[in-house]
Amino acid sequence: MSLINKLNKAFDHRIRLGIMSVLVVNDHADFKELKELLDVTDGNLASHAKALEKENYIRVEKSFIGRKPNTKYIATDVGKLEFKKHIEALEKLIGG
Amino acid sequence: MSLINKLNKAFDHRIRLGIMSVLVVNDHADFKELKELLDVTDGNLASHAKALEKENYIRVEKSFIGRKPNTKYIATDVGKLEFKKHIEALEKLIGG
Repeated sequence: MSLINKLNKAFDHRIRLGIMSVLVVNDHADFKELKELLDVTDGNLASHAKALEKENYIRVEKSFIGRKPNTKYIATDVGKLEFKKHIEALEKLIGG
Repeated sequence: MSLINKLNKAFDHRIRLGIMSVLVVNDHADFKELKELLDVTDGNLASHAKALEKENYIRVEKSFIGRKPNTKYIATDVGKLEFKKHIEALEKLIGG
């Protein structure tokens, strides 16, 4: 039984923690909102969001607002559950 | 002001969180103890410990116990302080 085996490696990076933290509290956030909240570059945000999408922890909705493309991120049920488990494991590790 | 800019990238990886968590609670831990507590490979433990050592967050004492070499890890004062700040930022992010 390891101290850290309940920590999910998909959430190791602080940008991924940040994305998930925003998306469990808000129904959705678009690319620009996430970028501003986390203060990260386009490339960093895109690559970490893509990693979470691959894990099926978030999903992406692309649409147009008027003529402007809009990318909206939403946490999936699996993502919310896995993030909750990760937070619990973190709290156990650092509180313990 | 970013949601994640107080998170320290040196502590992103769960193995580093694990090493620091052990070393802030215990005065020291040797390689074998850390390896067992965290359930990681020699190579993974060595590389993440080295990264923390480079940041001056932990220090290493090498000695012999009888004829057996022993590597002991100790958190530095800077390491303890930076880890505390990281934990506070994490708690703020995930609790917030």
